[in-house]
Amino acid sequence: MTRPDIDPKLDLVLERTVDVPPRLVWRAWTEPEHLMPWFCPRPWATVECRIDLRPGGEFYTQMRSPEGKDMEGGSGCYLEIEKERKLVWTSALGPGYRPAVARVHDLFFTAWILMEPQGQGTKYTAIAKHPDEASAKRHEEMGFHEGWNTVVDQLAEYMKTI
Amino acid sequence: MTRPDIDPKLDLVLERTVDVPPRLVWRAWTEPEHLMPWFCPRPWATVECRIDLRPGGEFYTQMRSPEGKDMEGGSGCYLEIEKERKLVWTSALGPGYRPAVARVHDLFFTAWILMEPQGQGTKYTAIAKHPDEASAKRHEEMGFHEGWNTVVDQLAEYMKTI
Repeated sequence: MTRPDIDPKLDLVLERTVDVPPRLVWRAWTEPEHLMPWFCPRPWATVECRIDLRPGGEFYTQMRSPEGKDMEGGSGCYLEIEKERKLVWTSALGPGYRPAVARVHDLFFTAWILMEPQGQGTKYTAIAKHPDEASAKRHEEMGFHEGWNTVVDQLAEYMKTI
Repeated sequence: MTRPDIDPKLDLVLERTVDVPPRLVWRAWTEPEHLMPWFCPRPWATVECRIDLRPGGEFYTQMRSPEGKDMEGGSGCYLEIEKERKLVWTSALGPGYRPAVARVHDLFFTAWILMEPQGQGTKYTAIAKHPDEASAKRHEEMGFHEGWNTVVDQLAEYMKTI
């Protein structure tokens, strides 16, 4: 598996297994109707999603708080796509590779979602690369490990039902 | 030629012809020894260049003022590469797609360099896409059109000598 080099000061890594096969993990990440049910830790919800699955294509999600407040939606941009193996996108670019507007509270990172068959399930690796230590620390304090673990549980639980 | 959609408020475009063929324009853009002689409007100079020509690879240039002062060097990241036709890179990401640190005076843009055979020469299109109108305006005021035109003249003049 093509895993990028990790810088422990700048990158956050989640490695685990999931008991659904790569085929279903891939569909969960690349089909809006199958992404929205698991993408936010409940009781938060993902209420809109657009996926234009090609390098330079848009990855948009809109989240809603348990109180019903919509967060400002964000468009990311896909960079590398290897079906059922690797998905790379960044929040630092929008659709068509246009640089994202840098607002004060934005968190810019590039994410790798890597999947490998393991028995009947998937060896799942999520990596978030940040521009500096402050961003990586902020992402960690926002609950990167807990949040990304929770949604992978939600992903597996949901994909068993489709 | 795959030309991206243009937003006149956010994008700067330079279209012209160059009297060397796409093969030489490509080499001028992708081989450090052939990039450094023309990449800055003289009497500025490009004193260092690294090119890792693959998606996610580094594009680094270091410029020196006529007074001999080195500017802070910047690493960009290649996004799309089609030999002798298209080169796309961004200053919003560094090597390995890591988001660039957003410093106050940084200008983030994604650039397309497009080339098509035209007679013995090249139809040459350079596009810079910016996150917002302020960045596009600043890039224009920094002399985008004059500067990018000048260096293309330097490119053609130099490539005829190799």
